[in-house]
Amino acid sequence: MSHNTFGHLFRVTTFGESHGPAIGCVIDGCPPGLAIAAGDFQGDLDRRATGRSRHTSQRREADAVEILSGVYQGRSTGTPIALLVRNTDARSKDYDDLATVFRPGHADFTYQAKYGHRDHRGGGRASARETTMRVAAAVIAKRFLAERLGIAVRGRLSRLGDLVPAALDWSAVEANAFFWPDAAMVPALEAYMDALRKAGDSVGAAIEVVADNVPAGLGAPLYGKLDAELAAALMGINAVKGVAIGDGFDSAGQRGSEHRDAMTPDGFASNHAGGILGGISSGQPIVCSLALKPTSSIRLPVPSVDLDNAPVTVEVTGRHDPCVGIRAVPIAEAMVALVLMDQYLRHRGQCGEPERRTGS
Amino acid sequence: MSHNTFGHLFRVTTFGESHGPAIGCVIDGCPPGLAIAAGDFQGDLDRRATGRSRHTSQRREADAVEILSGVYQGRSTGTPIALLVRNTDARSKDYDDLATVFRPGHADFTYQAKYGHRDHRGGGRASARETTMRVAAAVIAKRFLAERLGIAVRGRLSRLGDLVPAALDWSAVEANAFFWPDAAMVPALEAYMDALRKAGDSVGAAIEVVADNVPAGLGAPLYGKLDAELAAALMGINAVKGVAIGDGFDSAGQRGSEHRDAMTPDGFASNHAGGILGGISSGQPIVCSLALKPTSSIRLPVPSVDLDNAPVTVEVTGRHDPCVGIRAVPIAEAMVALVLMDQYLRHRGQCGEPERRTGS
Amino acid sequence: MSHNTFGHLFRVTTFGESHGPAIGCVIDGCPPGLAIAAGDFQGDLDRRATGRSRHTSQRREADAVEILSGVYQGRSTGTPIALLVRNTDARSKDYDDLATVFRPGHADFTYQAKYGHRDHRGGGRASARETTMRVAAAVIAKRFLAERLGIAVRGRLSRLGDLVPAALDWSAVEANAFFWPDAAMVPALEAYMDALRKAGDSVGAAIEVVADNVPAGLGAPLYGKLDAELAAALMGINAVKGVAIGDGFDSAGQRGSEHRDAMTPDGFASNHAGGILGGISSGQPIVCSLALKPTSSIRLPVPSVDLDNAPVTVEVTGRHDPCVGIRAVPIAEAMVALVLMDQYLRHRGQCGEPERRTGS
Amino acid sequence: MSHNTFGHLFRVTTFGESHGPAIGCVIDGCPPGLAIAAGDFQGDLDRRATGRSRHTSQRREADAVEILSGVYQGRSTGTPIALLVRNTDARSKDYDDLATVFRPGHADFTYQAKYGHRDHRGGGRASARETTMRVAAAVIAKRFLAERLGIAVRGRLSRLGDLVPAALDWSAVEANAFFWPDAAMVPALEAYMDALRKAGDSVGAAIEVVADNVPAGLGAPLYGKLDAELAAALMGINAVKGVAIGDGFDSAGQRGSEHRDAMTPDGFASNHAGGILGGISSGQPIVCSLALKPTSSIRLPVPSVDLDNAPVTVEVTGRHDPCVGIRAVPIAEAMVALVLMDQYLRHRGQCGEPERRTGS
Repeated sequence: MSHNTFGHLFRVTTFGESHGPAIGCVIDGCPPGLAIAAGDFQGDLDRRATGRSRHTSQRREADAVEILSGVYQGRSTGTPIALLVRNTDARSKDYDDLATVFRPGHADFTYQAKYGHRDHRGGGRASARETTMRVAAAVIAKRFLAERLGIAVRGRLSRLGDLVPAALDWSAVEANAFFWPDAAMVPALEAYMDALRKAGDSVGAAIEVVADNVPAGLGAPLYGKLDAELAAALMGINAVKGVAIGDGFDSAGQRGSEHRDAMTPDGFASNHAGGILGGISSGQPIVCSLALKPTSSIRLPVPSVDLDNAPVTVEVTGRHDPCVGIRAVPIAEAMVALVLMDQYLRHRGQCGEPERRTGS
Repeated sequence: MSHNTFGHLFRVTTFGESHGPAIGCVIDGCPPGLAIAAGDFQGDLDRRATGRSRHTSQRREADAVEILSGVYQGRSTGTPIALLVRNTDARSKDYDDLATVFRPGHADFTYQAKYGHRDHRGGGRASARETTMRVAAAVIAKRFLAERLGIAVRGRLSRLGDLVPAALDWSAVEANAFFWPDAAMVPALEAYMDALRKAGDSVGAAIEVVADNVPAGLGAPLYGKLDAELAAALMGINAVKGVAIGDGFDSAGQRGSEHRDAMTPDGFASNHAGGILGGISSGQPIVCSLALKPTSSIRLPVPSVDLDNAPVTVEVTGRHDPCVGIRAVPIAEAMVALVLMDQYLRHRGQCGEPERRTGS
Repeated sequence: MSHNTFGHLFRVTTFGESHGPAIGCVIDGCPPGLAIAAGDFQGDLDRRATGRSRHTSQRREADAVEILSGVYQGRSTGTPIALLVRNTDARSKDYDDLATVFRPGHADFTYQAKYGHRDHRGGGRASARETTMRVAAAVIAKRFLAERLGIAVRGRLSRLGDLVPAALDWSAVEANAFFWPDAAMVPALEAYMDALRKAGDSVGAAIEVVADNVPAGLGAPLYGKLDAELAAALMGINAVKGVAIGDGFDSAGQRGSEHRDAMTPDGFASNHAGGILGGISSGQPIVCSLALKPTSSIRLPVPSVDLDNAPVTVEVTGRHDPCVGIRAVPIAEAMVALVLMDQYLRHRGQCGEPERRTGS
Repeated sequence: MSHNTFGHLFRVTTFGESHGPAIGCVIDGCPPGLAIAAGDFQGDLDRRATGRSRHTSQRREADAVEILSGVYQGRSTGTPIALLVRNTDARSKDYDDLATVFRPGHADFTYQAKYGHRDHRGGGRASARETTMRVAAAVIAKRFLAERLGIAVRGRLSRLGDLVPAALDWSAVEANAFFWPDAAMVPALEAYMDALRKAGDSVGAAIEVVADNVPAGLGAPLYGKLDAELAAALMGINAVKGVAIGDGFDSAGQRGSEHRDAMTPDGFASNHAGGILGGISSGQPIVCSLALKPTSSIRLPVPSVDLDNAPVTVEVTGRHDPCVGIRAVPIAEAMVALVLMDQYLRHRGQCGEPERRTGS
């Protein structure tokens, strides 16, 4: 039991605050013999990083990963892999005025209520900066899943405020700053975001993550359900307010004759289930959705209170994402990969290697 | 780590299959001195039970709880509380034809893929029968939360297929068979369900659960987030496909200026957050939603395959709920109560008693 | 985290008090497909049981195991296996006088200090009666270990008060009531115990457990060390005050040139290490020792206090073992088997199947 | 579940190899508000460090702790406290000849058998270097225990090869290089160790750790027993082969009338139990013993095998402790402190603050 560890056999423990000296993680339980190099992390870390377009926060961190342990001669040894990233572009002065007030929509108030003491700078531990290490840890999980099982995990935006994609073209996703699967709409997104930024406001978003080639059999019938763990993993990302598998909330309005996926000798005829039945993977693509609230740190003023419960007006002027959902795409992929990795090892522990039976 | 245990300090381990001799649970970590009697469980178990109206499965179980341990002289001793309920109305014959086929929409296929061996009768371990023990365990959690902290957890249907409540009157909820907060609509619901049953089909539903008087400070900034654990708890209920906190998926379309809840000396001005900020309770009501898919076991035939992957047609004729979402209301309440109970003990472990500060 | 659960992937949760209606356990994480029948448990349960000779407590329990779940058509399904044993020969009246006093050497005082409330009858949860379920759970572990890995776990007494075996003949162990490996000494043991019982006193004992054919590679370099987990498992048996691996406490007086086991192409030249190096099994026999204190419940009077801290004299007249160490032999075997089972599954999870390399 | 994490609510995860760039740890679950500064660690780290006398390894590490997270304005925030120590005096060349051979008595062989790949330099993860972080983490635990509960944990050598103290004077312990409680014997110890070093051999040792002022009530009746967790903690220290509580192995030869500690209104009349009854602290001093084997890395040659199982002769010429037991004293204290800290938080979680009732 730990509040800062994720997973059971493939365990990731993260540490670090937004404006502390460093952030890092310890990955315990990694299978031995996996090829890992410091440069492997940069790809996904850059996808997650701020400062890569004008539509995200302008904080610029190199996110250079130092491997402190667990890798020898380029391969994992089976012992804890510790990764360290120094914080280099924190501007704590931006937060001086916020030390004694609570920013509405943020963890400021609740953190103070819980611990009675907090590092307010940049949100401290509650900052999305911590997700750097989730993405880094998942680079290792993704590699293992890909090499051993052929699993691929990919994500995309499925909604940006008022906009939804008119087309679903995965090849477009990595070619724009919005992980948007409809290249034709990118200019409209740019304009939408520019207007939003100018207005000093922010907007929510939704993400879809798909995992292909997951073998049937991962998960468990009850509390260790694959969908339950995905739900926790995704809801555990900053700003997420909703999580769904397959048809998600639409299921509430469906008939049984419509929702249940017929089976044929060639596999399932549809995938309303999102690749999970009874908490266990079916061999179909795993399909998850998540909804993220709009950034609370915006220029527009809002009433709040200070540590003495006196009324104040808060205007946040630091560097912030006008839509935190965008950069959450690689984070969501990361969490899905971490869940799959852990479930795979747990399955192998109890049952041995899964059959590579796929349902489609 | 366990696939059949829920919680960390207040731990519930359940066991039993739908058509085995009994189901039961072991509750470990209950604070000592709490008054508990065998009769205490009946209220919530009856709310969850089948056979109480024509709109649920007609299986009739007394659900009489035997306390096997952990209670002495009417009070908890701090040691494991084991509860046992004998299965008395299983009709395994109904499942004889299903031993070698996979029912679409069920865990049959995935269970077989995982374990290579299964008790197919009544869905075995994957049956909703198991939820009896979640509700029973939560009776103890609810009592502790109510007595020590004044917390009340209550649930209601928020959608039944095509129908949504026109009014929200909590006092109506327990007065009809649908946990429906709009008494005027109950006749329409009856007719809707009757038509559905006649058609041999089923329908999905959505549920809202609200926890009042939760003190600020429960949860954690990261993986032990209160919302992440609620998400896992609720997604872990059979048939659930989506989970949301506060404004949930609507958040994706909102502006920051709209979503963030302003604070005043008298508390929060609104509750878009659903009572959780940064993974920690704010003192406002905790508001959770969940969506359940329609029952897959319906009379209407569906293509499927058997154990040899040969095509078959499945028609399920046993006793089933035309809408599993209805009876899931007390189950969802139970899961929320279990999460709150566990988080409270964990908070007390690390930080001592929470301040009873509430945000509204 | 749980105070009543043992293991990580192969998890055993026990419940029940000495004089409650029943004791039982839930075994979670058992690999599927293992043959299990209710009768399988009787052999080891009888070895552990009281009332089989005049040298143990005269409480007579049938210890008939009911399998409540997790087994279908004679094989494990991968879901929790719940086992139940009803208590039938509790004589709670024997304890009426002890409800308000603390028996020296017992958990009475500490239990009261921790929970403020206790079931004093027969020691309640602290009774050795609970070990019935450890032995039952280990029957499943032993079978898996034997069938899949050829592992055999066996124990014997290595000391009984003032007596130590003059010979080590494993074939003698199961042929006497003392698990004594020296048949010629059995009459002396009988006389020794008869004299002790007549004197109203009790005596300590020591046990050795050996596990053969354990593959090299089980365990971990640090906190999940095989020896550390064996130490916890054995120290967790009632009355145990010392635990050792290989040469144990004698190691403190040895030279490095004497203790370290030389290696040859045919295996290790000796086994001072007791089959574990750096927390990981070496392929040699695992050799563990444990020391048990003498039974505290004896007829001889002893000063104590009552709940009000007033002085009293305690004389315990119920049915008790004059040497709890004797019956602890199958319990110690059980704990070793549970540790090996869990470590094997964990190893398979992280690293895949262990090589069957053995060091001797 | 994790192989590199210790504890449940107060969790310490360590990482790092002997000759890697750094070692470190993450302490999760620390209560907020505790005063912590980088300099606080030096005292105990220096007690554990090599190179402080000619009787330990001559590797000289500054062991300068960098606090990476979890502390703000000099106080713990409740989030993970990450500590980092760079390795600066590793001489990996000393190990070049050992890359392909197994050193008898070391984890070389078993590590290779488990993971198939290892960092052989300085023992890699199996090095005692890792214990630096246990001692560092325990500095925080010791402070909390001392400030909040008045608990003091202290250790001493109780045997050094053939020598045992003739007197028990705690004030002498910190005044010599051997943690020896008998100042008059120190010259004899010096001579003994010098002779040993000259002979190229090593020797075992035994340690006693005492914790004073532990309140009654910490622990649990069964698997979470205080003594069981101490046993795991102490057996988990490198080279430990035996662990005992109170009278330990002597208990096997005692009578019940001799061992059980009588109680009086003024407390217990003796402490054979070592402060723990039925797995729960009694309020008396907790007394633990441990035995450590002699260092396996000595100059004297020993037969072994290489990776191809061909015979070789191993002579270890690097820098090694002739008695690892000496420096293990602060490590043993550390492990006891970590167990008490974790048990205290767990007790507070389930039962609230313990009564400060002490049994003596």
